Amino acid sequence: MLDQSTICAISTSPGIGAIAVIRLSGSESINIADTIFHSRNKNKKLAEQPANTIHFGQISFKSEVIDEVVVALFREPHSFTGEDIVEISCHGSTFIQQKILEILIENGARMALPGEFTQRAFLNGKMDLSQAEAVADVIASSNAAAHKLAINQMRGGFSKEINALRSQMLHFTAMIELELDFAEEEVEFANRKELRNLTEKIEALLRKLKNSFQLGNAIKNGIPVAIIGDTNVGKSTLLNALLNEDKAIVSDIHGTTRDVIEDVVNIHGTAFRFFDTAGIRDTKDHIENLGIERSYNKLNLATVVLLVVDMQNPYPIVKQRIDKIRKRISGDQKLIIVANKIDSGLHETIQQMEVTEINDNEKLIFIAAKKKQNLEELVELMIHSLNLDDVNQEDIIVTNSRHFEILKNAHDAIVRVLNGIDSGITGDFLAQDIRECLHYLAEITGEVGTEEVLGHIFKNFCIGK
Amino acid sequence: MLDQSTICAISTSPGIGAIAVIRLSGSESINIADTIFHSRNKNKKLAEQPANTIHFGQISFKSEVIDEVVVALFREPHSFTGEDIVEISCHGSTFIQQKILEILIENGARMALPGEFTQRAFLNGKMDLSQAEAVADVIASSNAAAHKLAINQMRGGFSKEINALRSQMLHFTAMIELELDFAEEEVEFANRKELRNLTEKIEALLRKLKNSFQLGNAIKNGIPVAIIGDTNVGKSTLLNALLNEDKAIVSDIHGTTRDVIEDVVNIHGTAFRFFDTAGIRDTKDHIENLGIERSYNKLNLATVVLLVVDMQNPYPIVKQRIDKIRKRISGDQKLIIVANKIDSGLHETIQQMEVTEINDNEKLIFIAAKKKQNLEELVELMIHSLNLDDVNQEDIIVTNSRHFEILKNAHDAIVRVLNGIDSGITGDFLAQDIRECLHYLAEITGEVGTEEVLGHIFKNFCIGK
Repeated sequence: MLDQSTICAISTSPGIGAIAVIRLSGSESINIADTIFHSRNKNKKLAEQPANTIHFGQISFKSEVIDEVVVALFREPHSFTGEDIVEISCHGSTFIQQKILEILIENGARMALPGEFTQRAFLNGKMDLSQAEAVADVIASSNAAAHKLAINQMRGGFSKEINALRSQMLHFTAMIELELDFAEEEVEFANRKELRNLTEKIEALLRKLKNSFQLGNAIKNGIPVAIIGDTNVGKSTLLNALLNEDKAIVSDIHGTTRDVIEDVVNIHGTAFRFFDTAGIRDTKDHIENLGIERSYNKLNLATVVLLVVDMQNPYPIVKQRIDKIRKRISGDQKLIIVANKIDSGLHETIQQMEVTEINDNEKLIFIAAKKKQNLEELVELMIHSLNLDDVNQEDIIVTNSRHFEILKNAHDAIVRVLNGIDSGITGDFLAQDIRECLHYLAEITGEVGTEEVLGHIFKNFCIGK
Repeated sequence: MLDQSTICAISTSPGIGAIAVIRLSGSESINIADTIFHSRNKNKKLAEQPANTIHFGQISFKSEVIDEVVVALFREPHSFTGEDIVEISCHGSTFIQQKILEILIENGARMALPGEFTQRAFLNGKMDLSQAEAVADVIASSNAAAHKLAINQMRGGFSKEINALRSQMLHFTAMIELELDFAEEEVEFANRKELRNLTEKIEALLRKLKNSFQLGNAIKNGIPVAIIGDTNVGKSTLLNALLNEDKAIVSDIHGTTRDVIEDVVNIHGTAFRFFDTAGIRDTKDHIENLGIERSYNKLNLATVVLLVVDMQNPYPIVKQRIDKIRKRISGDQKLIIVANKIDSGLHETIQQMEVTEINDNEKLIFIAAKKKQNLEELVELMIHSLNLDDVNQEDIIVTNSRHFEILKNAHDAIVRVLNGIDSGITGDFLAQDIRECLHYLAEITGEVGTEEVLGHIFKNFCIGK
């Protein structure tokens, strides 16, 4: 399964930079480097140098000097891939980068496939599969919240949780299988009540992990937020004010470019994906109602719904609008009722809003969008409504759709176990479901899995990692 | 003059990559790194580690883990800048890159200015100014020829030539000044004939260097080539065929992007800049003639002119066209007469062309553009006509416009010396001109120069170098 060839790739961002790093991994990497690297001390051989050292010299080939470089030496098993690694830091012209790659290939290395360095790290036991997957997430994460989750996962947080679950299940199967050994004697070693408690605990844990994916996915790709409300209540003013908050995360670093996606914005380290749900209003026009229905459907995609109401309107109108939207909001969604224009609103409306009833998945905030009054508090509320401020590096939040699919399957299996206990089915059927559940969890950490799965995971990596 | 602060910057290409390198240089760089870098061995301090070693650990700040990184340690004076340097290789997300920079700045480093690392290398005597300037050229060079010249210059080739010139001139001034010391006795220690020989040698060298700039500039920015000829002689066919040759230097390396400038193409490692001079034909129309005049003016920008003539036409017509263009070509330009359509041309025309007279700055080649016949030979001719194949890593070719300006001034001064000797002016006047010439050459290597010049040179660098 483990390819023995020595691989190479440019590991730094493509394009021109002050320096670029070319990475070489495999049993021949040091020998290959030695054929093209020449120190000022002509007798110096990289093969004779200790691990974790740096060497200055030239890359030359067929008597032509390609560049002056710094070479870093790592020796197996104490390297990222677990193999011998040579990292060549050259001047960052694309010409030099390509030339060095060419020379390495001419001397016996081959171009690495996407993610192949990380794949080798996994295959050599340097990390489990969920950690390897997190490496790609760490590289892709563009805001503080997503980065936090990815780093935690890369450092093994998720694997720890999965392993704890598995050891509980192994305890379960041990009890069941002991019972099966003595099946003819019809003894129940595994106390059914005890079993049920344990299964309930496992089910709750799996459900928690499974359900965390909605949040995890939102954090990873930006939390979908819909701003809705009648015309002229101040939706655009609010959106523009929010978009101006800490907009571009990297704008103060010269030379750092970033794809600008108009409606995704980082606010206090969390990405929000604002989307347009214009046009919700009461009308008898059939065609217009079709359009409004489409807007409502879009609303369903939002994790957070900001319903903007105008304090200049009488309370009954405001209340009617709120009630109408409430019917469209699912229990998973957070509704933030944004009472706008408190600076110029009706005294009576504001007073009545202050005592209006608020449901569990709802929040109420009074703002004046034009004067940027209470906007900071609104942002806090948006972050808080997702319990994002509770997310810390110890929390396990599933961000990977492969893990989510597996957790769903594992959860289905454990629910079958629970139902099986309640309907009094025999231990061997219980054991089968629990083994299925165990198998799924092993897929997450990569202890079981096919090459096809591996190929699928690593092909989405960038080359050089 | 030398700023003592510790500077930091992202040194790799901006954007997302597998890894990124953040560079820290200055007396505090190791201490600053120690405050945010934590090895698995908690007692390990970078400050206590030997130079040129690599260390694995975490970057964390205020108890939050930012990334797992590899840190490389260089100690003054054996580093690129001549100062203590720490290079942090982190995961290449823009978020992590920016976060680590922020933390470094919070701990006492400041953002490096463009080229500041190289500027410090110069100020600390690690390289002279012309070498420092070549660092930027090495990074920017996108074809083999430009890269060859830049690497040669970075490695001190140009400085060696300049220093040889200066030592010859110092010999000259020594002779002159000895004479001045004994001025009252009216002795001529410095034999005028010997002086004249030496001055002639210096003048010839300076002229050679100065004149190499046209080629150097062409290599650096692409050799300007004009393809001209009457309509239907096969200009477009030829251009397309040439553009298809080895077009994109980096296209076979996945993930490497490159700005595509339509009319600059790398052929066999040399950049050619093809430009459009359509519309040259005989006409009596005044307006059209104005347009043709503009085309001729554009023609003057070309270093190489490819004049395509059609072998299907009678020889006198072909000859007339050639003679007409000859009048428009200056002695510095190379004219390649491309006799096209030899596969379907008139036997008589081809025969007469074979014996037609060719000037010194001209070449003649027979091709069939449509059948791609002899194209390879034409490319060879283009490269050969510039003596590009003679360019090797020992040749000194000026590519920098600052150096060119200085060399012009130095050459003017040495011409004044030559004229002075011939008109029999006194030694003190000769000495003045020779000192001026020496001063100019010192500006190239940076031994004399103002901060303003330095600022101008380094501001065009990328940050992180």
